[in-house]
Amino acid sequence: MKVLVIGGDGYCGWATALYLANHGHEVAILDSLVRRHWDAQLCVETLTPIAPIQYRLRRWRDLTGKDIGLYVGDICNYEFLERSMLDFQPQSVVHFGEQRSAPFSMIDREHAVLTQQNNVIGNLNLLYAIHEHFPDCHLVKLGTMGEYGTPNIDIEEGYITIEHNGRKDTLPYPKQPGSYYHLSKVHDSHNIHFACRIWGLRATDLNQGVVYGVLTEETGMDELLINRLDYDGVFGTALNRFCIQAAIGHPLTVYGTGGQTRGFLDIRDTVRCIELAIAEPAKQGEFRVLNQFTEQFSVAELALKVQEAGKDLGLKVEINNLENPRVELEEHYFNAKNTKLLDLGLQPHYLSDSLIDSLLNFAIKYKDRVDQEHILPKVKWRA
Amino acid sequence: MKVLVIGGDGYCGWATALYLANHGHEVAILDSLVRRHWDAQLCVETLTPIAPIQYRLRRWRDLTGKDIGLYVGDICNYEFLERSMLDFQPQSVVHFGEQRSAPFSMIDREHAVLTQQNNVIGNLNLLYAIHEHFPDCHLVKLGTMGEYGTPNIDIEEGYITIEHNGRKDTLPYPKQPGSYYHLSKVHDSHNIHFACRIWGLRATDLNQGVVYGVLTEETGMDELLINRLDYDGVFGTALNRFCIQAAIGHPLTVYGTGGQTRGFLDIRDTVRCIELAIAEPAKQGEFRVLNQFTEQFSVAELALKVQEAGKDLGLKVEINNLENPRVELEEHYFNAKNTKLLDLGLQPHYLSDSLIDSLLNFAIKYKDRVDQEHILPKVKWRA
Repeated sequence: MKVLVIGGDGYCGWATALYLANHGHEVAILDSLVRRHWDAQLCVETLTPIAPIQYRLRRWRDLTGKDIGLYVGDICNYEFLERSMLDFQPQSVVHFGEQRSAPFSMIDREHAVLTQQNNVIGNLNLLYAIHEHFPDCHLVKLGTMGEYGTPNIDIEEGYITIEHNGRKDTLPYPKQPGSYYHLSKVHDSHNIHFACRIWGLRATDLNQGVVYGVLTEETGMDELLINRLDYDGVFGTALNRFCIQAAIGHPLTVYGTGGQTRGFLDIRDTVRCIELAIAEPAKQGEFRVLNQFTEQFSVAELALKVQEAGKDLGLKVEINNLENPRVELEEHYFNAKNTKLLDLGLQPHYLSDSLIDSLLNFAIKYKDRVDQEHILPKVKWRA
Repeated sequence: MKVLVIGGDGYCGWATALYLANHGHEVAILDSLVRRHWDAQLCVETLTPIAPIQYRLRRWRDLTGKDIGLYVGDICNYEFLERSMLDFQPQSVVHFGEQRSAPFSMIDREHAVLTQQNNVIGNLNLLYAIHEHFPDCHLVKLGTMGEYGTPNIDIEEGYITIEHNGRKDTLPYPKQPGSYYHLSKVHDSHNIHFACRIWGLRATDLNQGVVYGVLTEETGMDELLINRLDYDGVFGTALNRFCIQAAIGHPLTVYGTGGQTRGFLDIRDTVRCIELAIAEPAKQGEFRVLNQFTEQFSVAELALKVQEAGKDLGLKVEINNLENPRVELEEHYFNAKNTKLLDLGLQPHYLSDSLIDSLLNFAIKYKDRVDQEHILPKVKWRA
């Protein structure tokens, strides 16, 4: 299958592109590389030294004999997007190509506008390109579990059946996202749903949880294929960030009580979920929503796990409950469904001590690259 | 009260600005005037000859002795928005300043992108301007009943209490909008809700139905104050459009069976609803949603009413059930709540034969200005 991975230079996108290429798909990456530029502007670097995309791809070809195509440009530029898609002729498009950090979107007005404009317009362009040229192409779009917020009822996968005043309907699940970034994903979901309804597009919206881990079979093949691993207050996510903090002897930055519960998954499951979604496409006109996570944890639980694992490695790990820079409930009900991907065949890599060990060792290996300036969160929701 | 009316040169905005000025408020209009430019680009004109904004405002001052301020510019330009608001120091902002036509947004990709970018980013800028400079200012935002779509259960005002698997929560009402325009309003609603939650803004989202009528006490004072009245396939809405079609002997353009049921209101109620919303602001942090319509009709019912009224005036009115250019249900359940504005004191002008008569006579007066080229709908949802 010909698969275009938009955002294929990023954390999930890179791992996915290699995995799909390694599993028999013909893959091309489309990426504006702007994420590297944002890193530079924020004066942060990934823990791991990631090679420029052209060297990554060359090494991949040398190692495996497989070519991955490359289109460098911005999907907000429709002419570029159209030209690239007409050239590659994708049967599936996996869309990771969005600004993906909640704190980034909350820095100030400019970053909020950048995030919503970039994500919503890019995705809208993609819908038009598929509609106009590849009406049968399956769109696999990365959403986020954060679209749901923390309602006081069970979170279903995309839709909920509501009985009300003696009548009944199945409607889109109500959304209460927690940042301008999360809002952009909610906007995308509504736009995609509409495009499926009126144009008969086929789309899968993967509401992904927080991804952890860094190694996949493919990115571990060679130092030049190494994946990015963010630890800073803007792009670093809970478990990855904690492991790196533990490695350098920095107290773990738990926001507030840490009672915030979220869905999590191993990056090795991310790539497999994409493969499963591609293998069984949504039907013509279907807006299929899958919740993509394997386990729920509170942030405090994760911190304790890292503390435990660190002890075994001889690390003294402190936990620091910082004033929460976000506006979010710290104690709340959270019970989200995630059976649809299991039904499609996902066999989860559940979080294990050995995974945390391996992450910690990985972090220790690169700890000299850590800039302590960027550990603490600086972006405040109420600024 | 100092009220800034964004989009005050438009159909609802103009009537509202004059009404509020006439009822003791200190009013300024902020408008980019781009709607006049879009008319020009689409080669359409309003039925009524509307004067340039500066002559409108001058005549208003000459007639009433009341000054209405004017800020000409685009709210997508934050510096302009900020400067204007700092100059005027509003206590309420009424935000009509968005691209408001569903067919316009469905013309092609460029118009879809223009609509979502213009509406979402403009509104986002406004949220930031209020947050940064006027945290106590009440935002009165025009949404649309079209955000809800046509669910098979009763439509509540913004929120719905859901019982699910033995638990209960009150959540944002699920949205199923029917065009890229309607989607832009859904995006706005989510963004505003979030801003209220994190920043404590006070906002009222008025989910307005289809507005009909043209005369208000103020716009009827003088020919130079006349309001716009759109009849073309892009900007014309159901009842207004039908009256003008009847006046020129064109068959009424009912899309499909005409079983589509919507909420409607008289423009004299629009202006009163805004006044009521301003008089009793949302609380700090509250995202208040009011459904702003007074009656439900199917499109076919409206066509029959116009046919009847036309007969009494000696007009022979035919009804033409065109192939529906939109993708929408033509037979569906529709029962929307609208008690909150009644509770605030709204006394509706229900649709009457005399209103239709007056609209028909108005249309007859200006019928020589009608361009028959633009009566039929040209924009198709599935194009």
